[in-house]
Amino acid sequence: MTKWVYGFGGGRAEGNAGMKGLLGGKGANLAEMSRIGIPVPPGFTLTTEVCTHYYAHAKRYPKTLKAEVAAALKRIEKTAGRKFGGEKEPLLVSVRSGGRASMPGMMDTVLNLGLNDRTVEALARETGDARFAYDSYRRFIQMYGDVVLGIDHHNFEETLDDIKDRKGYAYDTDLKADDWKAIVAAYKQKAREILGRPFPQDPEDQLWGAIGAVFGSWMNPRAITYRKLHNVPKSWGTAVSVQAMVFGNMGDDCATGVCFTRNPSTGDNHFYGEFLINAQGEDVVAGIRTPQPLTAAERRATGASLKAMEESMPAIFKDLCRVRTVLEKHYKDMQDMEFTVERGRLWMLQTRTGKRTAAAALKIGCDMVDEGLVSKAEAVRRLDPAQLDHLLHPTLDPKAARDILARGLPASPGAASGRVVFSAADAEAWTKSGEKVILVRIETSPEDIGGMHVAQGILTARGGMTSHAAVVARGMGKPCVSGAGDIKVDYKDKVLRALGVVVAEGDVITLDGSTGEVMRGAVATVQPKPTGDFARLMKWVDQIRTLGVRANAETPEDARTARRFGAEGIGLSRTEHMFFEPGRILHMREMILASDEAARRAALAKLLPYQRADFIELFKIMDGLPITIRLLDPPLNEFLPHRDADIAEVAAAAGADLNLVRARALDLDEANPMLGHRGCRLGVTYPEIYEMQARAIFEAAAAVAKEGVKVSPEIMIPLVGIKREFDLMKEIVDRAAALVAGRTGVKTRYLVGTMIELPRAALRAGEIAEAAEFFSFGTNDLTQTTYGFSRDDAGYFLTQYVERGVIENDPFVTLDRDGVGELMRIGTERGRAARPTLKVGICGEHGGDPASVRFCQEIGLDYVSCSPFRVPIAKLAAAQAALDGLGPKARPKAKSRKRR
Amino acid sequence: MTKWVYGFGGGRAEGNAGMKGLLGGKGANLAEMSRIGIPVPPGFTLTTEVCTHYYAHAKRYPKTLKAEVAAALKRIEKTAGRKFGGEKEPLLVSVRSGGRASMPGMMDTVLNLGLNDRTVEALARETGDARFAYDSYRRFIQMYGDVVLGIDHHNFEETLDDIKDRKGYAYDTDLKADDWKAIVAAYKQKAREILGRPFPQDPEDQLWGAIGAVFGSWMNPRAITYRKLHNVPKSWGTAVSVQAMVFGNMGDDCATGVCFTRNPSTGDNHFYGEFLINAQGEDVVAGIRTPQPLTAAERRATGASLKAMEESMPAIFKDLCRVRTVLEKHYKDMQDMEFTVERGRLWMLQTRTGKRTAAAALKIGCDMVDEGLVSKAEAVRRLDPAQLDHLLHPTLDPKAARDILARGLPASPGAASGRVVFSAADAEAWTKSGEKVILVRIETSPEDIGGMHVAQGILTARGGMTSHAAVVARGMGKPCVSGAGDIKVDYKDKVLRALGVVVAEGDVITLDGSTGEVMRGAVATVQPKPTGDFARLMKWVDQIRTLGVRANAETPEDARTARRFGAEGIGLSRTEHMFFEPGRILHMREMILASDEAARRAALAKLLPYQRADFIELFKIMDGLPITIRLLDPPLNEFLPHRDADIAEVAAAAGADLNLVRARALDLDEANPMLGHRGCRLGVTYPEIYEMQARAIFEAAAAVAKEGVKVSPEIMIPLVGIKREFDLMKEIVDRAAALVAGRTGVKTRYLVGTMIELPRAALRAGEIAEAAEFFSFGTNDLTQTTYGFSRDDAGYFLTQYVERGVIENDPFVTLDRDGVGELMRIGTERGRAARPTLKVGICGEHGGDPASVRFCQEIGLDYVSCSPFRVPIAKLAAAQAALDGLGPKARPKAKSRKRR
Repeated sequence: MTKWVYGFGGGRAEGNAGMKGLLGGKGANLAEMSRIGIPVPPGFTLTTEVCTHYYAHAKRYPKTLKAEVAAALKRIEKTAGRKFGGEKEPLLVSVRSGGRASMPGMMDTVLNLGLNDRTVEALARETGDARFAYDSYRRFIQMYGDVVLGIDHHNFEETLDDIKDRKGYAYDTDLKADDWKAIVAAYKQKAREILGRPFPQDPEDQLWGAIGAVFGSWMNPRAITYRKLHNVPKSWGTAVSVQAMVFGNMGDDCATGVCFTRNPSTGDNHFYGEFLINAQGEDVVAGIRTPQPLTAAERRATGASLKAMEESMPAIFKDLCRVRTVLEKHYKDMQDMEFTVERGRLWMLQTRTGKRTAAAALKIGCDMVDEGLVSKAEAVRRLDPAQLDHLLHPTLDPKAARDILARGLPASPGAASGRVVFSAADAEAWTKSGEKVILVRIETSPEDIGGMHVAQGILTARGGMTSHAAVVARGMGKPCVSGAGDIKVDYKDKVLRALGVVVAEGDVITLDGSTGEVMRGAVATVQPKPTGDFARLMKWVDQIRTLGVRANAETPEDARTARRFGAEGIGLSRTEHMFFEPGRILHMREMILASDEAARRAALAKLLPYQRADFIELFKIMDGLPITIRLLDPPLNEFLPHRDADIAEVAAAAGADLNLVRARALDLDEANPMLGHRGCRLGVTYPEIYEMQARAIFEAAAAVAKEGVKVSPEIMIPLVGIKREFDLMKEIVDRAAALVAGRTGVKTRYLVGTMIELPRAALRAGEIAEAAEFFSFGTNDLTQTTYGFSRDDAGYFLTQYVERGVIENDPFVTLDRDGVGELMRIGTERGRAARPTLKVGICGEHGGDPASVRFCQEIGLDYVSCSPFRVPIAKLAAAQAALDGLGPKARPKAKSRKRR
Repeated sequence: MTKWVYGFGGGRAEGNAGMKGLLGGKGANLAEMSRIGIPVPPGFTLTTEVCTHYYAHAKRYPKTLKAEVAAALKRIEKTAGRKFGGEKEPLLVSVRSGGRASMPGMMDTVLNLGLNDRTVEALARETGDARFAYDSYRRFIQMYGDVVLGIDHHNFEETLDDIKDRKGYAYDTDLKADDWKAIVAAYKQKAREILGRPFPQDPEDQLWGAIGAVFGSWMNPRAITYRKLHNVPKSWGTAVSVQAMVFGNMGDDCATGVCFTRNPSTGDNHFYGEFLINAQGEDVVAGIRTPQPLTAAERRATGASLKAMEESMPAIFKDLCRVRTVLEKHYKDMQDMEFTVERGRLWMLQTRTGKRTAAAALKIGCDMVDEGLVSKAEAVRRLDPAQLDHLLHPTLDPKAARDILARGLPASPGAASGRVVFSAADAEAWTKSGEKVILVRIETSPEDIGGMHVAQGILTARGGMTSHAAVVARGMGKPCVSGAGDIKVDYKDKVLRALGVVVAEGDVITLDGSTGEVMRGAVATVQPKPTGDFARLMKWVDQIRTLGVRANAETPEDARTARRFGAEGIGLSRTEHMFFEPGRILHMREMILASDEAARRAALAKLLPYQRADFIELFKIMDGLPITIRLLDPPLNEFLPHRDADIAEVAAAAGADLNLVRARALDLDEANPMLGHRGCRLGVTYPEIYEMQARAIFEAAAAVAKEGVKVSPEIMIPLVGIKREFDLMKEIVDRAAALVAGRTGVKTRYLVGTMIELPRAALRAGEIAEAAEFFSFGTNDLTQTTYGFSRDDAGYFLTQYVERGVIENDPFVTLDRDGVGELMRIGTERGRAARPTLKVGICGEHGGDPASVRFCQEIGLDYVSCSPFRVPIAKLAAAQAALDGLGPKARPKAKSRKRR
């Protein structure tokens, strides 16, 4: 029989940390902490299987659940020495969600459950603090009303304000016990008005209401959005943990806080956290009161005026330090913990692997290896490839002038400039129309998640380093400055005021999430330097991975960036990009407008020196590393103007007849240019174009060879679908090679291969590989043809497809393993069967997507090629895939077959 | 050691009829005739392997060839009792090409070879006819000069005209022996001038020159074009037959002719042919003199003034009749023979299976089955599916008025109207710009082949039933009227004159190739009736084939045609065609311009009655046969206007704002509409459209059910690439079915399936078939996506691809077995593995292409669907494939699983 409920507490537990799938992260770790002797209030967890059952059976629970919950409740009562609904020493509980993956702030929680008109009196008697008891009761009614009964919290806030007005109170703290009592009565009255029935008094009814609400919250829009953004399957479900309440708000010997075993922003091995005296846990996370630092060092570093816990509660702080050491040793990773101090006693409410910035992840990884806590492989395995991304982008130039507007907390590092917007909806709308935005909020809430996702950076006026904005931004790898108290945000007029300056919606500001500075205007940036911890970890990555990583690059700048980030060559150099520069485009157009081959050749002869010079520079920069050069690919129409004014200009510049230019542009116009006269089809109909390009490559190779630079060009024929196309194009290349070798006396080693970007090419790979010496999967086009999706047009319906769950991911971002991937598998197998030494890579944009890189390792590609900035990400993903035992072990690395 | 030369003659032969691949059709049949005692002048054949060797070794012959030819020549000399180059009784030979497939008129021939200044005298002495000897010599010089030495024949014609002018002769027959002698001298002088060396005198040099020319002619442009049109592989090569000359032009006891064992135009079992007294063979085919009929019956039937052979040469005619009987019994098929009578003795120069009109093929097939000569299966196997085509198109309405312009010979049946053009080049140019043309020539020659191919019909002023124009037109299944002597063709002014009427280039005329009539203007046509021999053969076809054949049809007229031609259902009914009619398109546009779902639904509600009425009519016509209905497929943009004037009109008609219409049209504009927002993607984003269509189908089904008509709709979701797309669309259909069943009380049996037209759909077929009840391969789009070819744009480079041998056939005409075909195979296998009862068909245009139908049988499809007129062609191709043992034997026919 399925066990639906797992108890914990009192140094024992039915579950453990390995049961995250069943108990959720929170439940599993509460059990584990209990097991290893950490002080945890007793409780029990309803498994994720209850959630699955609930949704599979029209929101009904398993039959035996009630009995199991009752028994588990009894055990809490026994451990805590209290009674649920009891008239003295009543047991109060919290009810929290907790799935397999952490979804911070996404799901609903109810505290102080078990309070009613009788137990509140018992609590007052027991604590001798009626004010605390009734404050707790009104908090419970408000929270339960909001989460379980669907009563919007403004209903209660109005009531509270009424009473404060009537009594002439300024602050909540002015209210007396009797005032709270009156408020509780008013709240209950309000609830009855709205619900048409009284607020539930039976603690058991309250409990089942709360459990139902947590399971219900699994499908609320916030949670659905979060899962979509983080690829959490709906089927995982959430667990529910019910735990005895401990109170951080019973007086000044009480506190509540959040802490990390190391600094989650820098990775420094210092204990780090925030706490509030006499407060309930939610107060810290919500960012309503600015919390106090944990350590004295931190207080000094931030210049905080309030005492650190180390100073105000030294004994408890010692206990907490002990917990810190035990948990990090036990879990062998940086922990993010929640605690409550109730009347001088420390209770741990949660521990989990702490989210951290990319820089912190690198530092923690290196430090833990040095400390002997984890292996190098484990350090590599733990890095999040997606998170690396923002370490690889420019940061603010330290030499650039900064017009400081305000300072806040350095909540999530990195720099970002953008136009100010004041709501998540505006952030999404402006981004859609192509603007880069900074989302500015007083504080953020889970409803803002969509806007945070599209913004370049986030600025909040309130909230600490562990506020919602800070935690989410760090997870997203986005710059964030939080708690910038100097800033006054005016949502109505859509302006922010700081130091007498007014910044309106649409004005540009810059954030430095590493320093907490907010600046007016855009500030210049500098390129990141892949050194220090980053370099150490990348060295380990390089030792582990078996997949080669190249970059897509054609400009000298791109090529240099590629080398700086450790690319092992260029996997895609698009020659057409070289034709768009002014001066060259004119000759290109001359070639296109030519009426016969002789005129075409004359124009091409003018392009040759440019192309050759480009290759010379590229060859020198890459200094012997392999370079895949793709011959002309786009339809010729892309080089011609289409508006009347432009046509006239081109005709004048080219000395051509206006009508001729117009006619030719019309003539080249295609119904579906993506499927039109492009790629090697141009090479078949105008062989002289590829002939010129091949000549430029070999002449450039000969030129640099004389300066001692070795060159390994891999010449790539685009859009091949038929073996004979490849044969014809290879003939042109081979002829050019022989011609140049004859003229210059320099024989260049080279390969001729093809892009596999059409389904037919993948299917006929065996035949094509008889002649082709390498393959490179052009997965952008292969995705277009396999799905029949035009990338230029699919935006509209693909968004809807993802939203409606027709597809899980945009196939242009993450490789479609089942369709496009199968063609890649077929192409690779058939190609290698025909030519065992066939070098196989990928040069679509998927080459920089971690999940896609993993797939490439799985099917045994030799290398991936991606944008220069993504090279380290691709390397890391490749190393992690290798650590997971994916991919062929015996196959030599691509590099070893570089020459022939 | 390879044997390169095979001898025949004197009742013996080294080869036989089974060796067509090696000896060519001509050589193999000469050997066979010799073997079975038919009088054949002795000769030998150089095999096609010599040709292959020749082209594989830079035009060099095998080493042992010379010796083998010399030995074979000796054997001819012995059999004929003559000596090659001999000073008395010299042996003259013909040198002819002859490949595996007949290529009439395509390749070069040399006659009278062996004549020189000495042997011509010997011939004159032997025959006592110097005029004949020198005429033969000048013919030889002219022919050899043209074919072997590359001297254009006009050079010789000028010389002849000069002499005729000088002597005051009107006709060739006026020339005396001495005149011909002088002409020979002048011809030789001319040749020496052009060549810079004398005309070759050594017979052996002459022979090798001619052999080289024949092998060379295998690669001349005419031959290449012919092979392309008839799918003859270049690799087959040609054989060369060298044969002792016999002369039909030695006097009035000599003759030459062409005959068929049955009438090749009607198929009647009457001996049929034409001959010329005192003429050489080429004279008949070239159509220079109008030939005499073979039989008296024929003379009477055609009203010819000249005597028939039966009357003028009764003994020889008897011999010929005996040969006719022997050969037809031997070959069990209608034969096309060439003969020469030399001084009262009959010689057969060639026999081959005779080309025939489609009507003749049907009649001969039925007759031979009745005569017990062949089996029904053999009769079916022999029909050419491509040839059937023109039997299935309209013929002239017998009741329509005919303005007769002229009468000629009924050379190739069928009716055609078109604009008059006077050259093959014009025919091609006019056709390219969308005109239908009739090619009018004095006589045609092999250079005209391209123009004949594109013309609707061919009219010649000269030439008989076996002239080049007639033979080629019959092969192409095109109407042809030949030898219309009343017509005067003026190439210079581009007019034809007949009975005082002038018809200019571009004027429309009509040909009736079955009667020989030429009419002014376009004449009304009637639908063909599939009765008589056609119906008998189709019955046998139906008994043999295992593949189902349906038609693509959406209009009532198409559906009726489909039934008349025996379609077993509709395989593709495109619902969008129903929206383009005036009145409907307005509501369609209203729907597209709607700003929300409610407005879309309002517009769709107006379309529903139309769509329902269409289906009611279709269901009634098809009366219980299965109908595959495809839901809306094209992008919505196709329904909107794009030119300013049209936009204004639509805005006015729809009562919509002009700018709104323009904006919406722009909004819907796609970079690659073929890969855009269409097919089920529309169904996902606007489910209400498919909902309306499904409702219309089920309401129509319910309506006709009440009248006793059974309906089996098979509802097809277009452009599925992802299982979930199909699931969502199937839900809509099932919901509509339930709704209509509830309202009307009529439960309709139906299937829901999908088009497989994207590579991904073929690859994921297993998954999709879990839900889909049938597949239909949409090979038009599947070809586009598999190759990455836009059908709208590929014309330009595809033509070049075929010309340059990059691909063998246009993949939009004949299925690409290797790429698209593999996806079909994968899709079928995976689909059936998931759902063994899965019905699988094809509805792309390939469904009517015989080679593609054959492939469909091979991979085990249940049915093909094609245009109504091509149903019999598809059926025949299917039967022939079944006769060849292709396809699964055990699988039940598609029909048997019609219902669920």
